[in-house]
Amino acid sequence: MARSGRKEELVAAAVTLFSRKGYHATTVREIADAVGILSGSLYAHVRSKAELLYEAVVQASERFQAAVAPIAAETGPAGDRLRRALAAHIRVVAESPAAAAVFLHEWKALPPEHRAQAVAHRQAYEDLLARIIREGVEAGEFRPLDQRFVRLLVLSVANWAYQWYRPDGPLSPEQVADRFYDIIAEGLLRRNP
Amino acid sequence: MARSGRKEELVAAAVTLFSRKGYHATTVREIADAVGILSGSLYAHVRSKAELLYEAVVQASERFQAAVAPIAAETGPAGDRLRRALAAHIRVVAESPAAAAVFLHEWKALPPEHRAQAVAHRQAYEDLLARIIREGVEAGEFRPLDQRFVRLLVLSVANWAYQWYRPDGPLSPEQVADRFYDIIAEGLLRRNP
Repeated sequence: MARSGRKEELVAAAVTLFSRKGYHATTVREIADAVGILSGSLYAHVRSKAELLYEAVVQASERFQAAVAPIAAETGPAGDRLRRALAAHIRVVAESPAAAAVFLHEWKALPPEHRAQAVAHRQAYEDLLARIIREGVEAGEFRPLDQRFVRLLVLSVANWAYQWYRPDGPLSPEQVADRFYDIIAEGLLRRNP
Repeated sequence: MARSGRKEELVAAAVTLFSRKGYHATTVREIADAVGILSGSLYAHVRSKAELLYEAVVQASERFQAAVAPIAAETGPAGDRLRRALAAHIRVVAESPAAAAVFLHEWKALPPEHRAQAVAHRQAYEDLLARIIREGVEAGEFRPLDQRFVRLLVLSVANWAYQWYRPDGPLSPEQVADRFYDIIAEGLLRRNP
């Protein structure tokens, strides 16, 4: 097996263990065991446990970006793009719940040297949502709200799915996103005719 | 110091350590050290590390309930109550960020015998929000939406605040709640006159 393949295996094993026990409680030995190599051999592929966390965070971030970037780059109505971006985000969470949990929670354990880069990756992802929202406001499709809070609201809903969404449940990520988007887009209050 | 006071100290120390390192990476010895007693003495006050996690989760749940129950029990417009419930929840997160993080994330580490009770406490809290939403729909104030998703949306926004809200930032919990509530209540889309 190529060295990069072994590294991928180590990242995958680390993601499973980090999401189950937390980063700090996971040992290098456990990660090596999960892949069937000795701890010493692990260091032929990665420098540290922190590097495995960093790789996991970057890979998860890239997965979210790959799902949402094409939608952000379209030019159709912003509302429809926001609904599909929400669905795409929840689908990534649904397909890789352990990776999402590590990306969303364990990243705080990153040491300072990796942390700034991880924050930049997260920011690049959030910028995709910010772009859709800004274009919606500029086109007069969305109300001129505090755009930071629109982004935070959409991210809160999309991210929190890692806590409750079950892929074997009755609703697909798209159906979940449709229900949330209906509330966000049209509002909770009934209008008087 | 009374035994109950020492137990409270142990729960507080456990909350700080669990939120920082995660439940599994925190040892009984570290919790005892933080309070200035020997590990052996800790067992005079609690049976296990799991009992400390359970106490922390129940206390946090009770704090959320105490903040929101009076609002849920009022009879005024549901929208105004939902806005204030959101503010009250974010205020609890802001005042006890470590306790909120343990309640929202680490509770999954609870062993089965404590887990069912913790889920019941969470459910009792969510029922308060469900009541406000149901009353809003029944009064014709809210649209007849899927109420479970309204509750999930409000909880997502309120809970995710533990990840980004900084008590030393420019906005109070009430101001944050107002911005989110405006979007949730009135919707993102601009209406045609």
